[in-house]
Amino acid sequence: MKNFKILVIGGTAAGTAAAAKAARINPGAEVILFEKSDTVSYGVCEIPFLIGGVIQDEKQLVIYSPQKLSQEKKITVKTLHQLEKIVPSKKKILVRDLNTGLLFEQKYDRLILATGASPKKLNIKGEECINVFNVRSHSDTNALLNYLNSEKPKSVTIIGGGFVGIEMAEAFRRRNMEVTIIHNKELPLNDFDYEIQQMVLDELKKNQINFVANAKTEAFIKSKSQRVEYVVTNKGTFETDFVIVAVGIVPNTEIFKSSRIRLGENNAIKVNNMQETNIEGVYAAGDCCEVKNIVTGKSAYIPLATVAVRSGWVAGENAAGGKAKFEGAIFSAAIKLFSLEIARAGLTEDEAKSLRYNYVKDFITADTKVPFMPENKKIFIKLIVDKTTKRILGAQLAGEEGVALRANTIGTAIQMKLTVYEFSKMDLLYFPMFSPLWDPLLVAANSIKKKL
Amino acid sequence: MKNFKILVIGGTAAGTAAAAKAARINPGAEVILFEKSDTVSYGVCEIPFLIGGVIQDEKQLVIYSPQKLSQEKKITVKTLHQLEKIVPSKKKILVRDLNTGLLFEQKYDRLILATGASPKKLNIKGEECINVFNVRSHSDTNALLNYLNSEKPKSVTIIGGGFVGIEMAEAFRRRNMEVTIIHNKELPLNDFDYEIQQMVLDELKKNQINFVANAKTEAFIKSKSQRVEYVVTNKGTFETDFVIVAVGIVPNTEIFKSSRIRLGENNAIKVNNMQETNIEGVYAAGDCCEVKNIVTGKSAYIPLATVAVRSGWVAGENAAGGKAKFEGAIFSAAIKLFSLEIARAGLTEDEAKSLRYNYVKDFITADTKVPFMPENKKIFIKLIVDKTTKRILGAQLAGEEGVALRANTIGTAIQMKLTVYEFSKMDLLYFPMFSPLWDPLLVAANSIKKKL
Repeated sequence: MKNFKILVIGGTAAGTAAAAKAARINPGAEVILFEKSDTVSYGVCEIPFLIGGVIQDEKQLVIYSPQKLSQEKKITVKTLHQLEKIVPSKKKILVRDLNTGLLFEQKYDRLILATGASPKKLNIKGEECINVFNVRSHSDTNALLNYLNSEKPKSVTIIGGGFVGIEMAEAFRRRNMEVTIIHNKELPLNDFDYEIQQMVLDELKKNQINFVANAKTEAFIKSKSQRVEYVVTNKGTFETDFVIVAVGIVPNTEIFKSSRIRLGENNAIKVNNMQETNIEGVYAAGDCCEVKNIVTGKSAYIPLATVAVRSGWVAGENAAGGKAKFEGAIFSAAIKLFSLEIARAGLTEDEAKSLRYNYVKDFITADTKVPFMPENKKIFIKLIVDKTTKRILGAQLAGEEGVALRANTIGTAIQMKLTVYEFSKMDLLYFPMFSPLWDPLLVAANSIKKKL
Repeated sequence: MKNFKILVIGGTAAGTAAAAKAARINPGAEVILFEKSDTVSYGVCEIPFLIGGVIQDEKQLVIYSPQKLSQEKKITVKTLHQLEKIVPSKKKILVRDLNTGLLFEQKYDRLILATGASPKKLNIKGEECINVFNVRSHSDTNALLNYLNSEKPKSVTIIGGGFVGIEMAEAFRRRNMEVTIIHNKELPLNDFDYEIQQMVLDELKKNQINFVANAKTEAFIKSKSQRVEYVVTNKGTFETDFVIVAVGIVPNTEIFKSSRIRLGENNAIKVNNMQETNIEGVYAAGDCCEVKNIVTGKSAYIPLATVAVRSGWVAGENAAGGKAKFEGAIFSAAIKLFSLEIARAGLTEDEAKSLRYNYVKDFITADTKVPFMPENKKIFIKLIVDKTTKRILGAQLAGEEGVALRANTIGTAIQMKLTVYEFSKMDLLYFPMFSPLWDPLLVAANSIKKKL
């Protein structure tokens, strides 16, 4: 395993994690990381806080510069290098140096694909205008910041009411802009069930965000200066200073379609629990590949930073000669929208339904503190329990405080495949300022037991 | 089981829970609850908040009046009735009606002992003075409140720096009083290890509380008006307007010593996992009895409200003919002291040591949020892991936010007997405002793994 050449394609969460791990596990290996942009290790999840002014300095989002990553982790980092082709039969790849435009060959012993995902396109006219932005990368962020600073726009139309869309909506409201969200469903945030989605919608409206439901974006109408001026939808036409497109992401696997690398339904790379693809010596990690959903035991597409880094570690360790395994993920996520915190762990009801689980659900309201404490708040918990096995399949929470960390407690139970009976016996703590005598999670567990 | 007579002795957490559960499980039973004071169902844990002015109205601490408890739960409630003797051979008890002073017999089919615990006495002269208070009951609270309102004292000396002592210290500081704590050890809060204890001490000092370490209270010096004016210790004599004695509690089992009921080392009643004592038909629950420590599998004395109510439910259900089991407890507890939150779950290092575990320990500092988020705080986590089994034996946490709820997440892992390797693979969520990419709990787990 000495003098091994390990190539990593992609320098965000999964790629940097994989490269750093490989170099640490096998100090004799030569690890080269290729990244097509000029930045590695970028804090994508923090972009909305930067735009909203919560974080002041864009540089803080660059957690490692290429130089620092290279020095600290003992890897060779080549930015502005783009993968063009992989030739597994000859254990080589073709890479284009975007500085010079030149294509060159690079041999490998092990190859780790961490090509990530890209914003979905609307594929409508006007999408190329300079006032239409995605929110996914360093260059996206700089373009948007420059635009905001130079043009001082007063209104924005956001296409897509998912995680990114609603986070950006808040960010722009912090800048006192008029914000319209165009969403293709009745309620925002498709990764949650309607009880929580309705609360999110209420929070958007309470904060003067215009939410256009069930709307399909049909066209952008450009001004003479080649800027989008109007967004045309089947629910009306909206005048706007600029546009954010946040309608989801697709794995960057287009380049692999002509190769023998197996892709799954979502066009994400298929991997086993060692992050191996179907081709010997080729690994994948992060947003470009699938992950095992621990709840269902089946492959799923869960493009979250936590999953990216964990799968990157496993890919890096195994590429370097290790035997690491990735347990998978439960889609554990949270978001804060103005004063509303929401979180999920495990399956939503929609997911449980489409996977044909025989489930029961329950939605309860509880107190975050002893009710007569002055700062007591309400918390809302939805549970999904398997009727047959009694296992907790999923939890969604919402409220003003104590939401995300409670999701981790029930998430731990979900990941350990506890039944709701087992969970309801958990010895959770009681202190008037932190929790009532029965933590809201136990209230929820005891409530749904009555329906089983 | 119809027309069963179920007697419950004691009307705080365990007793009311047991009585209510028994009546619900067996509606044909006659359930009679005897309580020696004039109050049932009192919020003992909330007393410091009342004294500190966080809660304004003392009535809020009375969760159920005797009348309401009686009506809503369909039980007969007899306050000011004191148990004098139990005669298991004849399935009867002797009770004194404190209103009339008369003693009477009461037959039972099932008897539930929930006699609770009482403040430990110092057994020194002057303890009987009217300006010496405990903080454990409705009458304690009223006496103290009346004293504070009528005498407007400016200084207090608290004997004992445990949970109650430090909570009361904060309450009196909120009233701008001079506060001295006399403690028998080097550091306050014996239920935590020194790393956390040191932080508690710093927080006390930061808030101008005088902490006298390693001090034994030797005498109270009374004024002519029969009030304690000076507290004499081996570390000096302290002038004071009044005194709080909070040096721990003892189970109220003195009355059972002449009976055949088996007591454990701490003089708490021995019970099995159905809350049965060694005498047929006699159950016990709450602060008067032992509980199984889930971590060790052994009996322990963990007098917490959560344990009291859970064990009360089990006692009530089984006394009414059910087959409930109590899993036990992990000593999961939290406290807030000014701006410091601390929490524990499982064993402390001191406990692990005295139980002769072969353990490793680790104490880490982590961030509660993404480090460059403006409201990021530090959090401190101590873990104790069994060297042989790799199981997490205990966790202690401290910091300004997100402490108690994180204790519940690792507490769930401790209760499920997870190894630290299993826990370190938990899919905990990431959102810049709620947690860094790696939750502090995972930082702690990954750190201690290196010591194993």
